[in-house]
Amino acid sequence: MTFSAWYTLRKFVYNNLHNDDYETQFSRALNYLLILLILGNASAVLLESVNDIYLSYKIFFDTFENISIVIFSTEYLLRIWSIAEKDPFHSAWRNRFTWLKSGGAIIDLLAILPAYLNFFVHFDLRFLRILRLLRLLKLTRYFVSLQILLRVIEREKGSFQAVIFILFIMIIMAAAGVYLVESHAQPEAFSSIPASMWWAVVTLTTVGYGDVTPITPLGRILGAMITILGVGLAALPAGILANGLAHELEQRKQQLELHFRELIQHSDIDFILEPEKIEEVRKSVGLTNEQTQDIILELLREQKEEELKQEREQYAYCPHCGKKLPEL
Amino acid sequence: MTFSAWYTLRKFVYNNLHNDDYETQFSRALNYLLILLILGNASAVLLESVNDIYLSYKIFFDTFENISIVIFSTEYLLRIWSIAEKDPFHSAWRNRFTWLKSGGAIIDLLAILPAYLNFFVHFDLRFLRILRLLRLLKLTRYFVSLQILLRVIEREKGSFQAVIFILFIMIIMAAAGVYLVESHAQPEAFSSIPASMWWAVVTLTTVGYGDVTPITPLGRILGAMITILGVGLAALPAGILANGLAHELEQRKQQLELHFRELIQHSDIDFILEPEKIEEVRKSVGLTNEQTQDIILELLREQKEEELKQEREQYAYCPHCGKKLPEL
Amino acid sequence: MTFSAWYTLRKFVYNNLHNDDYETQFSRALNYLLILLILGNASAVLLESVNDIYLSYKIFFDTFENISIVIFSTEYLLRIWSIAEKDPFHSAWRNRFTWLKSGGAIIDLLAILPAYLNFFVHFDLRFLRILRLLRLLKLTRYFVSLQILLRVIEREKGSFQAVIFILFIMIIMAAAGVYLVESHAQPEAFSSIPASMWWAVVTLTTVGYGDVTPITPLGRILGAMITILGVGLAALPAGILANGLAHELEQRKQQLELHFRELIQHSDIDFILEPEKIEEVRKSVGLTNEQTQDIILELLREQKEEELKQEREQYAYCPHCGKKLPEL
Amino acid sequence: MTFSAWYTLRKFVYNNLHNDDYETQFSRALNYLLILLILGNASAVLLESVNDIYLSYKIFFDTFENISIVIFSTEYLLRIWSIAEKDPFHSAWRNRFTWLKSGGAIIDLLAILPAYLNFFVHFDLRFLRILRLLRLLKLTRYFVSLQILLRVIEREKGSFQAVIFILFIMIIMAAAGVYLVESHAQPEAFSSIPASMWWAVVTLTTVGYGDVTPITPLGRILGAMITILGVGLAALPAGILANGLAHELEQRKQQLELHFRELIQHSDIDFILEPEKIEEVRKSVGLTNEQTQDIILELLREQKEEELKQEREQYAYCPHCGKKLPEL
Repeated sequence: MTFSAWYTLRKFVYNNLHNDDYETQFSRALNYLLILLILGNASAVLLESVNDIYLSYKIFFDTFENISIVIFSTEYLLRIWSIAEKDPFHSAWRNRFTWLKSGGAIIDLLAILPAYLNFFVHFDLRFLRILRLLRLLKLTRYFVSLQILLRVIEREKGSFQAVIFILFIMIIMAAAGVYLVESHAQPEAFSSIPASMWWAVVTLTTVGYGDVTPITPLGRILGAMITILGVGLAALPAGILANGLAHELEQRKQQLELHFRELIQHSDIDFILEPEKIEEVRKSVGLTNEQTQDIILELLREQKEEELKQEREQYAYCPHCGKKLPEL
Repeated sequence: MTFSAWYTLRKFVYNNLHNDDYETQFSRALNYLLILLILGNASAVLLESVNDIYLSYKIFFDTFENISIVIFSTEYLLRIWSIAEKDPFHSAWRNRFTWLKSGGAIIDLLAILPAYLNFFVHFDLRFLRILRLLRLLKLTRYFVSLQILLRVIEREKGSFQAVIFILFIMIIMAAAGVYLVESHAQPEAFSSIPASMWWAVVTLTTVGYGDVTPITPLGRILGAMITILGVGLAALPAGILANGLAHELEQRKQQLELHFRELIQHSDIDFILEPEKIEEVRKSVGLTNEQTQDIILELLREQKEEELKQEREQYAYCPHCGKKLPEL
Repeated sequence: MTFSAWYTLRKFVYNNLHNDDYETQFSRALNYLLILLILGNASAVLLESVNDIYLSYKIFFDTFENISIVIFSTEYLLRIWSIAEKDPFHSAWRNRFTWLKSGGAIIDLLAILPAYLNFFVHFDLRFLRILRLLRLLKLTRYFVSLQILLRVIEREKGSFQAVIFILFIMIIMAAAGVYLVESHAQPEAFSSIPASMWWAVVTLTTVGYGDVTPITPLGRILGAMITILGVGLAALPAGILANGLAHELEQRKQQLELHFRELIQHSDIDFILEPEKIEEVRKSVGLTNEQTQDIILELLREQKEEELKQEREQYAYCPHCGKKLPEL
Repeated sequence: MTFSAWYTLRKFVYNNLHNDDYETQFSRALNYLLILLILGNASAVLLESVNDIYLSYKIFFDTFENISIVIFSTEYLLRIWSIAEKDPFHSAWRNRFTWLKSGGAIIDLLAILPAYLNFFVHFDLRFLRILRLLRLLKLTRYFVSLQILLRVIEREKGSFQAVIFILFIMIIMAAAGVYLVESHAQPEAFSSIPASMWWAVVTLTTVGYGDVTPITPLGRILGAMITILGVGLAALPAGILANGLAHELEQRKQQLELHFRELIQHSDIDFILEPEKIEEVRKSVGLTNEQTQDIILELLREQKEEELKQEREQYAYCPHCGKKLPEL
C-alpha cells in the first residue's frame, strides 16, 4: 500500500515537472512560480551589482539567494527522482541517466552548482554572482517558440559556419590592410594587426563606435571599400535565420494540416466545430492560434477551389459505358 | 416622417465615417480633411516645442487646438451615434458597445481624452502637448497596407517573443560580462550591471554611439565576440517581418486569384475587359494595382501552359484497341 | 531616292540608339562610349569640387563640359528624331510625343537642361555643377538588373509606404519622448522636438553617430526601449526588397521555362544544343547565364523525375480492353 | 615494375590530395595537418605584427615560415604531379594545365609565390608578411558550405551589381548634397565631394562613426532623409544572399530527394535502414545531417499523404455500370 502511494506521488511529481501535456491549475501555478523565481534571481543579480543597493539590503539579498538555492536544489532532485516515470520500458536509473545528459538537466545543474562549489573553491565573489545569471537559461524550458528558434539555428549551422568563416577571414584581412596603411599615422590605435582587429570588428558589424577611425585618405578609401563589401555579411545570419524560421513554420503548418486532414477523414462530425481537438493538435505541433486559424481558413479555401475544379470537370463521361457521370 | 429623416441622416453619417465601400466626392473630401487636420495637429505639437515659435504664435496655436478638440469630439460622437447602422440584426446600443471596445475607437478616445482630463487633473503642460501626438494613430484607419503590417506582426508574435527573449538574455549576459572585465578600468561607465546594459543595448542593436566603449584588451575581445554573435539577432525581427509580409501578400494574391477564377467561371463574357469589376475585387482584398496585374498575367500564363500540356497529351491512345485513353 | 536614304539613315540611328535587340560592333562601341562619357562627367564633377585640381585644370574641365553638352544634346535630338521608327502604325510625332513623356527621355533632358537654363537664369555655380551628376541617371538605361530592381520597388510600394509611415510616427514619438525626459539635462541638444528628431533618426536607423546621446538614466532607458523596438523597422525595407527581388526572378524564370518548353514542344531537334536560341530567349527575359543554366538543369531534372514516375506507373492497364499497356 | 610502382604512388598521392570521395585515416590526418598549418601561418602573421613578440621570438617565426614554405611548395608540386590521374582520357599534361588554371591552384600559387618573388624583387617586409594571409584562402577547399555560399554569390551577381550601382550613385549624390549645404559650416570635413564621400559611405552603411556629422539644420535634414532612404539599401545584399542561399539549399534538397526516390525505386530492401547509403548520397550533394533527416521525414510524410489520398478516392466507381473508374 505504501509502495503504491509512493508511485502515485512520483507520478504526480513527474506530471507536474516533466509532462508538457498535463495541465492542471496546480501545475500551471507551479510553473509560473518557478518562472517568477528565476526572474527574481536575475533581478537580484542586477541590483546587487549596484553597490549602494547591495549594502543597504545585504540581508534580504543573502536570504533570497539561500531560499532560491534550496528551491532550485529541491526542484533538481525531484526532477531526477520523478523522471523514472518517463519510459516504463526502461529502468528508473536508465531514465534518470538519459535525462541527466540532456541540455535541460545540464542547465538545471549549472544553476545550482556554483553555489555548492563555493564551499570548496573560493571564487571571486562578483564572478560567483554573475554565474547565477545562468539560471536565466532555465526559462528556455517554458518557451516553445524559443525551442523552434534553437532548432532552426541547429539545422542551418552549415550556413552559419560559412558566414562566420568568411567574416573571420574578412576581419583578419581588413585589420591587416588598415594596419598597413594607417599604423604610421595612428601608431597607437593601429599598433598591430590584433589591435587593428578591434576596428575591423566594430566596422564590419556596422556598430561603428568611432573610437578608432582611419584618418589618412588611403585608410579611408580602404575603410570605405571594406565597409561596402562587408556590410552585407554582418546581416546575413539574420537573413538565414529568418528564412529558416519561415521554412520551419511552413513545415509545422503542413504537419498540422496533415493532422487536420486525417481528423476530417476519420470523423464524420464537423471537425471545425470542435475547438478542444484543434487546440490539442495545435499545441502538439507548437504553433500560435493565429497560424492555426490560417491553416483552417486554408483548408476551407482549398475545399472551395476543389468545388470550382469539379464544376469545371462536370462534363466527364464514364470511359466504360460512355454515359455522362453525375457531378462529383 | 421626421423619424425617417433621422434614420436617413444617421445612414448618411454612417456611410461617410464608417463604410469603406461607400465612396462619394463628399466622403473622400471629408477623409482628406480629417487626415489634414491630424497632420496639422502633429505639426503644431512639433512647432510648439520650439520656444520662440510658440511664444510668437501662442494665440494661433491655442485657437487651432480648441478647434481641433471640437472637431475630433464631434467626430467621436457622430461615430458612436452612427455605428448603430452597422449590423441591423443587433440593437443600436449593442453595435455601439462593440465599436467602443475596438482599437480604432480607443485611439479616437485617446486623441481627445487628455484635453478633457486637464480640467480635473492638472498635467504638466509639456506632457499634455506630447499626448496630443497620439492623434497621429488615427491615421492608421486610412492606410490599408499598415493594417496588413499590423496583422503580420500579430501573426508572427510567437517568433518576436522568442527573439526579444533571446535579445533580453543576451543583453543581460553581455552587460554582466563587460561589467566583470571593464569596471576596474572604467568604474564610471561600467559602475554596475544595469549601467553596463546601456553599452550592451547600444552595441547589440549595432547603433554604436561610442559614448561608452570597452578599452581593456579583455573587454575588447569580449565586446568583439558579443558583437559578432549578437549582430544577427538585432536584424532578425526585420527578416521575420519581411517574410511574414511576403507570405501575407501571397495569401491575399491567392484569394484574389480565387475570386477571379470564380468570376471567369460564372460569367461567359471576357472578364479581363471589365476593369470596374477587377477594381472592386482588388480593393476588397487590399492589394495594389501592380500586384493585381501580376495575378491577371499569371492567369493568362497558366492558360497557356494548360494548352501546352493538352497538346502534349493529345496523342494518348491505347496501342491495343486504338481507343483514346482517359487522361492520366 | 534621297527620301529612301533618309529613312535608311533614320532606321540606322533608331537601331543604334533605341533598339535593344539590335547588336552590332558599332552599336556596342557607341553604347560603351556613351557610358564612358557619363562616367567621365561624374568624375569631372567630383574632381572640380577639389579646389586645387579645379584651378590647375580649369580649361580642361570647361572644354570637357562643353564637348559633353554637345554630345548629349546631339544624342537627345537624334533620339527624338529616330524614335519615329518605333511603331510604324503610329505617326512619327505621336511616337516622339510618347517617348518624350517616358522616364528615360526626362532623364536625358535633365542631363542637358541646366546647362542651357544657365544662359537665362544665373544659378549658383556650385549648384549647377552638382546638377550635372543627374547625368549618372542616364546609366539606368544600360543595366537590366537595375530595371528589375526598380520594378520591384514599384510593385512593393504599398509595403514601403506602410514602413515609412510607421518609421515616421516612431521618429516623432521617440523625439517627443526623449525631448520630455532629456531636455532638462541637455537643453542644447534636445532643445525642441524637431531638434530631437535628429537623435531619433540617427538612432532608429542604427547609424548612431554619438554626437547626441541621452545621458540621464530615464533618457537611457527610454532610448534603449526605442532602439530595441525600432531596430527591426529600419532593416525592413531591405527585407521586403530582397523578397520582392527573389519573387520577381522566380517569375522571370518561370517565363523563361515556359518559353523553353514551347521551343522543345515545337521543334524536334535537340533544343539544349542550340546556344544561340537559348541566348536570344535569355536576353528577352533579362536573366543571367547562371540562372538560365539552372533552369535548363531543372528541365532536365524534371524529365528524369517524369521518367521515374512513368516507371512507377508501368503496370497501368487500358480501361477499354483490360490489356496491359506498354511503358509510356 | 618500377613504372607500376610509380603509377601506384601517383594514384595514392592523387587520392589523398585531390579525391574528395577517398577517405582513409591517413587522408583525414593529412587534411587536418594542412588546415592546422594554414591556421598556424595566419596566427604567426598576426603575432609578428606585434613588435615585442616578433623581436623576442624572431628565430622561431623565421623557422616556422621556412618550414611552411617548404611544405606548401611540396604540396603544390605534388598536386601538379598527381592531378595527371584525374581524367584517364586526357593526357597527364592536359590534366595538369586544366588544374593550373582553376581557382584552387591559383590560390595555392599565391600562397607561396610572394616568398619566392622576394629573392628577385625586394618587397616591403611588412607588406610581404601580410601577403602571407592569402594562405587563409587555401581553407576554402575544406568547407563545403563555403563553396555553396560562393556559388550563390556568383548566381545572384546580377542583383549585386544593381545594388552596388545604386549604392554608388547614392553615395555620390549624398556626398554632393551634403557638400553643398555643409561645406560652409565645416570647410575641413566637407572640403570637396570626394572628401564628403567618407561621410556618405559611413552613413549609408549605417556604420556611423560620428567623426564627421552634419551640424547645420539643413545638413541634418538632408542627412536624415538620405539615411532613411538609404538604410534599406545597405542591408539588401544580405537579404539577397539569404534568399539565394535558401533557394540553393532547396534545390540541393530536391536533388537529394530525387536520389533517394531513385534508390527506393530500384531497391526492394528498406532504404531508410541503410545509413551508409544515405550518408554517401548526402555527402555528394553537400547537405548537413539535419537537412537530410528533414527530407527523409518529408518522404515518409508524403507517403502518408498518398495513403490518405488513396483512401479518399477508393469509392470512385461509375454509378451507371458499377465499374471502377480510372483515377481522375
